[in-house]
Amino acid sequence: MRYCALVEYDGTGYFGFQRQRQKPTIQEELEQAIEAVSGQETTIIGAGRTDSGVHASGQVIAFEIAWQHAASDLLKAINASLSRAIAIREIKETEPSFHPRFDATARRYEYYIYNKPVRSPLRRHHCWHVIKPLDLDLLNRAASMVQGEHDFATFGRPPVGENTVRKVLLAEWNDRKGFLVFTIEATAFLNRMVRSLVGTMKAVGEGRWSTESFLAALEACDRSRAGQTAPAHGLYLVSVSYE
Amino acid sequence: MRYCALVEYDGTGYFGFQRQRQKPTIQEELEQAIEAVSGQETTIIGAGRTDSGVHASGQVIAFEIAWQHAASDLLKAINASLSRAIAIREIKETEPSFHPRFDATARRYEYYIYNKPVRSPLRRHHCWHVIKPLDLDLLNRAASMVQGEHDFATFGRPPVGENTVRKVLLAEWNDRKGFLVFTIEATAFLNRMVRSLVGTMKAVGEGRWSTESFLAALEACDRSRAGQTAPAHGLYLVSVSYE
Repeated sequence: MRYCALVEYDGTGYFGFQRQRQKPTIQEELEQAIEAVSGQETTIIGAGRTDSGVHASGQVIAFEIAWQHAASDLLKAINASLSRAIAIREIKETEPSFHPRFDATARRYEYYIYNKPVRSPLRRHHCWHVIKPLDLDLLNRAASMVQGEHDFATFGRPPVGENTVRKVLLAEWNDRKGFLVFTIEATAFLNRMVRSLVGTMKAVGEGRWSTESFLAALEACDRSRAGQTAPAHGLYLVSVSYE
Repeated sequence: MRYCALVEYDGTGYFGFQRQRQKPTIQEELEQAIEAVSGQETTIIGAGRTDSGVHASGQVIAFEIAWQHAASDLLKAINASLSRAIAIREIKETEPSFHPRFDATARRYEYYIYNKPVRSPLRRHHCWHVIKPLDLDLLNRAASMVQGEHDFATFGRPPVGENTVRKVLLAEWNDRKGFLVFTIEATAFLNRMVRSLVGTMKAVGEGRWSTESFLAALEACDRSRAGQTAPAHGLYLVSVSYE
């Protein structure tokens, strides 16, 4: 039986989603929990390979095991076996052909900036603390420039065998209760693309880069033209869309 | 010079505010940071002695040191010397007679319950996960019973030499974006009082206790009549009031 599940995790302390030797990863912990519950070895497939330290509230995974009971019992059993940093939020049976990565039509990420003079200990693992005040209008002028289909070579590297053109369906900044939140939805992303965009837009929001410089960097299709890469702990994979 | 400061901390991993031998506490870390910055030993006084694991967004402290520069420089220097789990949010010079605990006219706490069937890894250190749905109206009927001056012996023990009568200025539950948040303001609190109230009100919200049973427990003035004590990691000291 093939299952599809929605997964939330706190990426703090993990070396990203994808399994690596000798390092704690989300994939490995999920596979171990599923094996502990079912007695069967399985390989899970995730919709997005989040980087080291990146969080997810809506990662999508699929895996196959033989299971005689209800899917809701499987959810409870896996969650009981997982570390407190990871949980399956929803689970259901799916078609044998379902592939969380290849079938996805869009991914949505959010990036949280805490834009206050003094850092916040209670929020320290879940947002980027930026001291200098950022101009929300300038941030949104930069964000509007990345909407649509572009070659994003300036802001990330593609997986092996792919090009650097991506289609951005939504890119906007909002003030959400003291946080500046960047929401971006695209058909797919390059490696580090969201963090590189956020770090570069931050320079625009501070007034250090003009929006014209930002556009020129985008159009240059040159990785060396990007600004800084924002830290991983402000980034969340929030949802994945399917047909 | 005497300084008054507003302090935020993530209580996870600390044995509460008050200094203890061989255990990490908020007080000890603050005193060490102030000493590192000023070269002077000092004892800080806090408005509230939060328990092990309890958080604060608005703890108030006072201390005396000789300092030649601006208060804003003192804030930056102490924050640079503190662990990331603690920060001074505001600081100012104050009168030599100011005492954060004795001069306080009220303290406000908030308690966060995450009331969903499945736990949330991203929120796990900062709220209590309660699976069974709680009835907000029942919670608020119980909360209204603790408003005003009462003997709260059922819900906590007094500091040495004090009685168990306390005046509750505000007690209410609100639904705040998926969290059930209990806000309580009182002139002062007994040890464990907020957590004992929350744990007992939870039984009311679940329908296991009637509001009449809750009132009877309150009126019994008997510690053994309280329900469970809610865990520390959902509790925040949010503000302290002065004349």
